[in-house]
Amino acid sequence: MSARRQLSLNLFVYPAGHHEAAWRYPQTGLDTLQDLGYYQALAQRAEQATFDAIFLADSPVLPENIRYAARFRLEPLTWLSAIAAATSHIGLIGTATTTYTEPYNLARQFAALDHLSGGRAGWNIVTTHEGKSPLNFGLDAHPEHGDRYARATEFLDVAGKLWDSWEDDALLADRASGVFADTAKIHPIRHVGKYFRVGGALSTSRSPQGRPVYVQAGSSEEGRSFAARFAEAIFTAHQTLDGARQFYTDIKRRAVALGRSAEHIKVLPGISAFIGSTEVEARRLEEAFDELIQPEFSLAELSARLGVDFSRHDLDAPVAAELIDRQGKLASYSRFKLIVDIIDRERPTLRQLIRRLAGARGHFVLAGTPERIADEIQRWFEQGAADGFNVMPPWMPGGFELFADEVVPILRRRGLFRERYAHRTLRGHYGLPRPESQYAQARRQTA
Amino acid sequence: MSARRQLSLNLFVYPAGHHEAAWRYPQTGLDTLQDLGYYQALAQRAEQATFDAIFLADSPVLPENIRYAARFRLEPLTWLSAIAAATSHIGLIGTATTTYTEPYNLARQFAALDHLSGGRAGWNIVTTHEGKSPLNFGLDAHPEHGDRYARATEFLDVAGKLWDSWEDDALLADRASGVFADTAKIHPIRHVGKYFRVGGALSTSRSPQGRPVYVQAGSSEEGRSFAARFAEAIFTAHQTLDGARQFYTDIKRRAVALGRSAEHIKVLPGISAFIGSTEVEARRLEEAFDELIQPEFSLAELSARLGVDFSRHDLDAPVAAELIDRQGKLASYSRFKLIVDIIDRERPTLRQLIRRLAGARGHFVLAGTPERIADEIQRWFEQGAADGFNVMPPWMPGGFELFADEVVPILRRRGLFRERYAHRTLRGHYGLPRPESQYAQARRQTA
Repeated sequence: MSARRQLSLNLFVYPAGHHEAAWRYPQTGLDTLQDLGYYQALAQRAEQATFDAIFLADSPVLPENIRYAARFRLEPLTWLSAIAAATSHIGLIGTATTTYTEPYNLARQFAALDHLSGGRAGWNIVTTHEGKSPLNFGLDAHPEHGDRYARATEFLDVAGKLWDSWEDDALLADRASGVFADTAKIHPIRHVGKYFRVGGALSTSRSPQGRPVYVQAGSSEEGRSFAARFAEAIFTAHQTLDGARQFYTDIKRRAVALGRSAEHIKVLPGISAFIGSTEVEARRLEEAFDELIQPEFSLAELSARLGVDFSRHDLDAPVAAELIDRQGKLASYSRFKLIVDIIDRERPTLRQLIRRLAGARGHFVLAGTPERIADEIQRWFEQGAADGFNVMPPWMPGGFELFADEVVPILRRRGLFRERYAHRTLRGHYGLPRPESQYAQARRQTA
Repeated sequence: MSARRQLSLNLFVYPAGHHEAAWRYPQTGLDTLQDLGYYQALAQRAEQATFDAIFLADSPVLPENIRYAARFRLEPLTWLSAIAAATSHIGLIGTATTTYTEPYNLARQFAALDHLSGGRAGWNIVTTHEGKSPLNFGLDAHPEHGDRYARATEFLDVAGKLWDSWEDDALLADRASGVFADTAKIHPIRHVGKYFRVGGALSTSRSPQGRPVYVQAGSSEEGRSFAARFAEAIFTAHQTLDGARQFYTDIKRRAVALGRSAEHIKVLPGISAFIGSTEVEARRLEEAFDELIQPEFSLAELSARLGVDFSRHDLDAPVAAELIDRQGKLASYSRFKLIVDIIDRERPTLRQLIRRLAGARGHFVLAGTPERIADEIQRWFEQGAADGFNVMPPWMPGGFELFADEVVPILRRRGLFRERYAHRTLRGHYGLPRPESQYAQARRQTA
């Protein structure tokens, strides 16, 4: 085979890093956490390492427990636009919720990001169930899970129509005839549905990628079926290769059953690596971070995930698994299931569990030499568990620089990862086709 | 007086320029109208000319008559973020509507723009009455004028609370104690009103300017009273010095009556200048643009403004003023009044009127030498009609380069405009105070 299958690598940018105590580590740059230059430099470093994309998560609410952790939000559409200006190739993936935004506004902003970046926009589609976010939008509680996904599905239908509403060749700009835009190729979408009525067309021309790359992270039943239908990349959390492989197999099977190509849906588990020149050094590094954990914070996070108040439990006793309501409302969330699986499999003490989750909120954490990290990446990649990884450095920028400087060259030597970009769009990096406008397609088919 | 009063100059960026046929002029760069580099270069040029700000207008709808004019939209929050990355001093003012957005989302994005630009964000607050925009948001018609302003007023109350919700010193990042944010200084806003219920606090810390500079453009009775209460800069359209002076006097009087300082509300009429090395050359340039006008477009625009279908009227007959309903729904709009005033004052033919409006949609258009343009600016500035201008070049980038190269040096020689920036924030350029957080103020007053 001439073109060997290649890893997709994504940098998940989190202010000070993904370890919950990262900001307390002396080598994070606390003074620059709200400076554009800091994030631009991170993106440039990832671009030097020929990563596919950077990713900014989001939720329209102040995270709980901000007292103890650097969890303020970087609003993705604005920050990624500013980062776009300092980069030329790397993809720019931002989270936005379908539950608390309007499709016309959001479609415009992603189209703008795609235009101004020359075709590098990706949208991580979420339905948001975090904390008190409904209270910021006049609601008393989140819409139910099923209702959120129903709205998300219609939202994508509307946004897709808007992004298609200008055919690619609608903008003529013909000075002689005086026709700027061929209005026969600009389509009012006239959408009327359960959640939205939107007249359209979009207020700007079709963007370089047609529409942003669709990214998704849901692992619940509804999340999987949504992802199988729409997602072109999936951010997912797994603690074991076996668990990741089951998810990978399931999601690809679902996508193929819907008539999609398995290659057009990239499965990218999170990975957080403590890197040392020896195994002992790497573990010591991880332990240094664990010493910075504040149990009050960790327990509050865990309690919110599992619906049990652990604040007065003995840290060195086994987790009181019998208190967890496995049929309750929280049980539908993928992160609930992931944590419960750890408890059932490993019977950890409360202290062991919070350390386990501190590194990357349930994503795969490992400590080792660059070779060992590369081995693990290769193993998941070759054994049907991953098409690549969402790299979640424990701290930034140092933790990412180690990955870029030490792990990436090994992956390249093994022929698993590109030496240079072959494309300038995120679709190009992922090997995804550029979608044709549904209106152009309809015209072609009736012609 | 040692520090002479200084002009404020703002560049109103419009894809090909403000003349409605600008895109047909051979010297506009049609190929780059959607390229970030083009807009960054314009902003850099304005920054070299030490302008206070650039401005992007907006409306969440595809403009009518896109067939004939380069009126696609640049979504301001994304594009200004990307422009921020290529500039260091110039203010970045973007339009956003209070009618079709949610305060929590919009407040986050403006806070982000202010953070990432180091304190250069300005918000042109509009209530939107353009075309079919309600149809993009599930509505059949625009909310009524009064209702839109009532919502806007409450929107500002909510957004203001959100921007104040983190006191300036709430972010501690104290590694030793493990306290990242002092939650006693982060305030849930708990807003409950007629239009919004918002819990707060904002998901990010207070931005460099506290909040964006408030800009407004309303000239109706409600618009003026809103502007007098909130606006720190006003974009306004006037055809004559007298008209501008009346507006200027009225708005300052209203602001002072509300206890504000007259200096903290900058009145900035639009100006579109055709610049030539002689008066004849300048007028020839203007005529060259007028030759490119497409009457079908101009008449459609005029008909929409005045509520009269002029499409079959004789271009060379006087405008049929008797058909205009002066008590109708459109009469409350400032642009309606401005056009009707021209008709009453000058009794133009239809052709004369559409040429008059083609340059800048009703803003002040003049043709002349750089000295003549500078004279006019100085006259308005010194005779109580303007604190500065919103510069609307007929075409871009050339039309702006002429202004920057030829007119700005004259204004500087006359001591009317800065030679270099003394500040790095938009509030600094405008001489506006940085607002204290209302929550910090309350704490101070009860202490």
